[in-house]
Amino acid sequence: MSDTSGPSEVPPGVVSLGDYERHAQAILPADAWAYISGAGADGLTRRWNREAFDGMRLAGRVLADMTDAGTDTMLMGMPMSMPVLVAPVAHQKLAHPGGEVATVLGASAARAWMCVSTLASTTLEEIAEASQTTLIFQLYMQASREVTLSLVRRAEAAGYSALMVTVDAPVNGVRNDEQRAGFRLPPHVAAVNVQGFPTPSSRAGPGESPVFKGLLDTAPTWSDIEWLRQQTTLPVMLKGITSPHDAERALSCGVDAIAVSNHGGRTLDTLPSSIEALLAVADTVRGRVPLVLDGGVRRGTDVLKALACGASAVMVGAPVMHALAVAGPVGIVHMLTILRAELEAAMALTGCVRIDAIDEEILWPGKDAPGLRS
Amino acid sequence: MSDTSGPSEVPPGVVSLGDYERHAQAILPADAWAYISGAGADGLTRRWNREAFDGMRLAGRVLADMTDAGTDTMLMGMPMSMPVLVAPVAHQKLAHPGGEVATVLGASAARAWMCVSTLASTTLEEIAEASQTTLIFQLYMQASREVTLSLVRRAEAAGYSALMVTVDAPVNGVRNDEQRAGFRLPPHVAAVNVQGFPTPSSRAGPGESPVFKGLLDTAPTWSDIEWLRQQTTLPVMLKGITSPHDAERALSCGVDAIAVSNHGGRTLDTLPSSIEALLAVADTVRGRVPLVLDGGVRRGTDVLKALACGASAVMVGAPVMHALAVAGPVGIVHMLTILRAELEAAMALTGCVRIDAIDEEILWPGKDAPGLRS
Amino acid sequence: MSDTSGPSEVPPGVVSLGDYERHAQAILPADAWAYISGAGADGLTRRWNREAFDGMRLAGRVLADMTDAGTDTMLMGMPMSMPVLVAPVAHQKLAHPGGEVATVLGASAARAWMCVSTLASTTLEEIAEASQTTLIFQLYMQASREVTLSLVRRAEAAGYSALMVTVDAPVNGVRNDEQRAGFRLPPHVAAVNVQGFPTPSSRAGPGESPVFKGLLDTAPTWSDIEWLRQQTTLPVMLKGITSPHDAERALSCGVDAIAVSNHGGRTLDTLPSSIEALLAVADTVRGRVPLVLDGGVRRGTDVLKALACGASAVMVGAPVMHALAVAGPVGIVHMLTILRAELEAAMALTGCVRIDAIDEEILWPGKDAPGLRS
Amino acid sequence: MSDTSGPSEVPPGVVSLGDYERHAQAILPADAWAYISGAGADGLTRRWNREAFDGMRLAGRVLADMTDAGTDTMLMGMPMSMPVLVAPVAHQKLAHPGGEVATVLGASAARAWMCVSTLASTTLEEIAEASQTTLIFQLYMQASREVTLSLVRRAEAAGYSALMVTVDAPVNGVRNDEQRAGFRLPPHVAAVNVQGFPTPSSRAGPGESPVFKGLLDTAPTWSDIEWLRQQTTLPVMLKGITSPHDAERALSCGVDAIAVSNHGGRTLDTLPSSIEALLAVADTVRGRVPLVLDGGVRRGTDVLKALACGASAVMVGAPVMHALAVAGPVGIVHMLTILRAELEAAMALTGCVRIDAIDEEILWPGKDAPGLRS
Repeated sequence: MSDTSGPSEVPPGVVSLGDYERHAQAILPADAWAYISGAGADGLTRRWNREAFDGMRLAGRVLADMTDAGTDTMLMGMPMSMPVLVAPVAHQKLAHPGGEVATVLGASAARAWMCVSTLASTTLEEIAEASQTTLIFQLYMQASREVTLSLVRRAEAAGYSALMVTVDAPVNGVRNDEQRAGFRLPPHVAAVNVQGFPTPSSRAGPGESPVFKGLLDTAPTWSDIEWLRQQTTLPVMLKGITSPHDAERALSCGVDAIAVSNHGGRTLDTLPSSIEALLAVADTVRGRVPLVLDGGVRRGTDVLKALACGASAVMVGAPVMHALAVAGPVGIVHMLTILRAELEAAMALTGCVRIDAIDEEILWPGKDAPGLRS
Repeated sequence: MSDTSGPSEVPPGVVSLGDYERHAQAILPADAWAYISGAGADGLTRRWNREAFDGMRLAGRVLADMTDAGTDTMLMGMPMSMPVLVAPVAHQKLAHPGGEVATVLGASAARAWMCVSTLASTTLEEIAEASQTTLIFQLYMQASREVTLSLVRRAEAAGYSALMVTVDAPVNGVRNDEQRAGFRLPPHVAAVNVQGFPTPSSRAGPGESPVFKGLLDTAPTWSDIEWLRQQTTLPVMLKGITSPHDAERALSCGVDAIAVSNHGGRTLDTLPSSIEALLAVADTVRGRVPLVLDGGVRRGTDVLKALACGASAVMVGAPVMHALAVAGPVGIVHMLTILRAELEAAMALTGCVRIDAIDEEILWPGKDAPGLRS
Repeated sequence: MSDTSGPSEVPPGVVSLGDYERHAQAILPADAWAYISGAGADGLTRRWNREAFDGMRLAGRVLADMTDAGTDTMLMGMPMSMPVLVAPVAHQKLAHPGGEVATVLGASAARAWMCVSTLASTTLEEIAEASQTTLIFQLYMQASREVTLSLVRRAEAAGYSALMVTVDAPVNGVRNDEQRAGFRLPPHVAAVNVQGFPTPSSRAGPGESPVFKGLLDTAPTWSDIEWLRQQTTLPVMLKGITSPHDAERALSCGVDAIAVSNHGGRTLDTLPSSIEALLAVADTVRGRVPLVLDGGVRRGTDVLKALACGASAVMVGAPVMHALAVAGPVGIVHMLTILRAELEAAMALTGCVRIDAIDEEILWPGKDAPGLRS
Repeated sequence: MSDTSGPSEVPPGVVSLGDYERHAQAILPADAWAYISGAGADGLTRRWNREAFDGMRLAGRVLADMTDAGTDTMLMGMPMSMPVLVAPVAHQKLAHPGGEVATVLGASAARAWMCVSTLASTTLEEIAEASQTTLIFQLYMQASREVTLSLVRRAEAAGYSALMVTVDAPVNGVRNDEQRAGFRLPPHVAAVNVQGFPTPSSRAGPGESPVFKGLLDTAPTWSDIEWLRQQTTLPVMLKGITSPHDAERALSCGVDAIAVSNHGGRTLDTLPSSIEALLAVADTVRGRVPLVLDGGVRRGTDVLKALACGASAVMVGAPVMHALAVAGPVGIVHMLTILRAELEAAMALTGCVRIDAIDEEILWPGKDAPGLRS
């Protein structure tokens, strides 16, 4: 934990992920906070992410024998010490001068996998260099396949263990908070992995749509996924799927895993909550590939609920930025450790000994009524 | 955009229709605000208009091919560049000295249709003169058929493309906000199109009802609609229908379209939300005439949801007054452009290429559970 | 309207029953307000009274022919000009020095029936003297049948048209607001009709229940109702029934009408809302006797909804005290006139011409789903 | 009532259990308050405990004959004057210098049973000495059976009437409020009954789980319950069961009663509310052993509802600490008397004469729809 140029101590009273969020808001500049915390449009999906977790109830079990209990499990054939991944979050130097290196040091210490964003503010090679944990490279498809492939090759060369292709952001969401705050990336933060790459521009005439004419020209389609699957031997996960229809289509492209995600409510507002989307997707996928839930996880009970609904693991995104801003790499370790300890307590109080044995039996009042709003 | 006598610049931080509303409230005199924003009675229906849109969820679709995507469509046999109309709003000079002329300049620039109120503060001819877009004349039936017909003939002569007869306001709603604010039209704002026309007065004796004795004497009935339909070759749309029973009756009168509307919650409080009324009416009408939804639209996702529930287009009313008050014709263009860009982003993220292909498939979790409260 | 010793003008901005409530709170001493406004325990039933009305939706109807529309109707064989009664409210001199005489002057001017409480602060004879409307005498059964009968005979002699026996208050509710405020009747307010009557006292030993030992000894039972029915030729209505079981029992005692009431939420907290109780009772009674709804009515739409759910009329209680406190007899006329005008507007916008033709058809979305919470 | 070293008078305006809570918060040091009032994690289950009681509705009954009504009943073969027990609450000297002795004096005066915690701040023998009521000893299973047995023998010797084994706290809940307040037991408060007993410690290596490695080693399992049942002739009740599955298992161990409890929402957050758990457990147990509800009881109507849902009695925990803090033993008597008087009033208004005749008939709208959220 060599990074010392930003905050590196956990302040008193920070005992939950919610505490990290409150402290981060107090520390960060208003426009960076607007970028980090801003949801799409009216923030309904972001709110629903939490409400759906909160409204889901657990069936307690007492007096179970917890000998040999543990949180270790497998994902895409690789062992993980707990079913919680650091999500791919762009521009982490916004939160802390150590950026993605600070995060990977913390994740390594906490023995959690980390996903590295195409839009990281550190090169993917430097992050890999500092890592002692399993890394996944998050890939935004670029304007040309050639350029996309260059990123894939770099990730392979740097020892990344899998690719995660984000598929739900062909256009920006309606980020009113960011817009009102006039957020722009500060000079010391740049998407260094894609610097100099060609970017799409609008070719709309007067009265024509800037969205449909130009910006969407280079957005990836299913055929790009089929193509990508042929280009690498790394496992490929798609991130950003919420509908069973798309999940089925993803399977037919040969993907190895699916991250069910509504982008934390930052793309299309009024998408269903992450856990509701998971339930629907799990019902279609029926175990053919592992599912990872992304969006709204803030408590160990949330992890338990996601696993009960069919996820093999979950990702935390915003809490990474909050912990990084508040206490750098130490914050990352602490935040992940809180989540793990909460998960373990929840396992003990629901009588769950092993991660892969967690199923809908622990939901109250049983499988037909998980307490969700759909 | 020649009108320069009122506000004409978009203030910083105005990036959504909600921002326009907040800014308008800060700018307008309290009594004008009470008139413009005041709902019927306790404002329940107005609140439900928003809650129903907000509570309805979308099914995301990723990686769709968006080549040739667009918002252009048809209504009553006429082409429109986007399925959003400026609703007929009375007394627009209350919001901006340019009044309806400012609005029509903005709507023309944004390529949106505009409905002109019988109670416009500018003559229908002057508005037509300034217009470069499709205009619909909103008609309040007058105390005599002769007088009503004079308005129809003027609209025909001025080149209006259709008539929209408002049928849900035979009596005023219970407008407590307006009443408390003591709102009266200021001297510079007058319903110039009907000046000098005879108005109904109460003939109630002591202890008799002023509502039932007098004011309702000249309220239109279904036979007046049948009569009107015979008097003009223009398409006739009824505005203010919420019940399937009335929709069926309207069809039997030969109307060309129906605007499903609860008058923005300003007439009878506790009418259902606009989108719920639309669902019920669409179920009865089954495509025999196009439906236009009016009431509560504030986001591009709302437009998408209304189309998915059976509307061919939507109207925005209050946002017109807000945008007009804040930035005159520029505000109108900007407000309509925001709505269009939001609609386009929502189409991209749900995989909708064309307006007329949008159906209930994009609602989560499918047609049987659109997430509404009924 | 001779009473001039208290407030007698409607303040500006008072345009709804809610306005009267807010103004009354500002005018009245805190302890009197605690008595008048205080609900039972946590006030849940009182809140539900409003929420149930608010949550119930209306099906609008347009373009109906409203010729000959009116609010006149019949109750227990007697004509009434509108289906709204002044409920029996005790101790009205707490609100205004004119007390019940002020109320009856206002009710007479508004052509509304009035119920007079056993606990009126004016003698029942004086009220009858001042009345030009139909009066009902509200009867609390007294410690002995002889004493009860003396009240009945006085009501008969004074020309009251019916008796209304309150049956839901054998013990006081848990009136925490009153208790905290230390409310006691001030010297100028007394229950003059029962002065000097014997009152029950506790005979509980140490550690025994003061509720069960003593206070309940003289509480009436069904046999007292059967007895009372034999003692008078006046119509007898029971007030305070919420369950279908009790309604059936009341019918077997030969009562002439039932006031479905939860005592405005002042007796047993978490009783169902008044409108839900009405629906259940109406379903059992099926028109064998007329039903009057009491509890939570504040809007003309509430009156319409109660009629649609099976009531023949409604009562307003707390609004009487509010209007009396704010503007004396003028307030009573004004408050009742507001309610009538709101009812008429709601009838016009739902196409209801006559009171006795109002049925569940005007509820959205029809009889099977009145939007209630049960 | 000899204890005079702490508060001993009921302040004006304290007329409900909620008033005691508010006053206690104002009196107690912030960290003690955080311990006493702090819920698990986000406090959802604690909130649901109240919401479920509040949302459950009662069916009123009028004019019932209440002769011989009373709150006396039986539990585990022993008579009790009212179906409300003082729950086992640890560390009562935190609330009042008199601690558990003050509580037992109050409970005795109010004729209520008291459960004494293993973690009492007074020896179980001293409490028994001061008691004039039925006592139950709450047992936490200790690190060795030998030590556990020593506690059982002491309780037997001191004249306790039953054992209540808490089974839902093998690990601490996520008590963020306590943690943020930095709560530690002050020097004058100690768990005197277990002083010097061995306590489990973590044997986790670096990166291993402190929860699973060590702390859980000595947690009891079902076989410990079977063993305990053989060691004593006292009735044994299990406290902390919420699931029907565990209830069935408990019956097979031969327990004499079950306390359905979610630990007041202090262990695993998002467990169902206590009343919902009771409904599910009662449905499985079907009267084979008596059930006691624990968690959220604050009103006499709550007691009535719990009995209607299948409980034989209820416990109050937090209100004991609140009343103790505010007025010592006098507060305990007063608090229990309030609850009893509220229960009696609720019985009178629902026509319930005897405790053991209370059933689901008093729930609105009947047994199939108790108004709960499951």
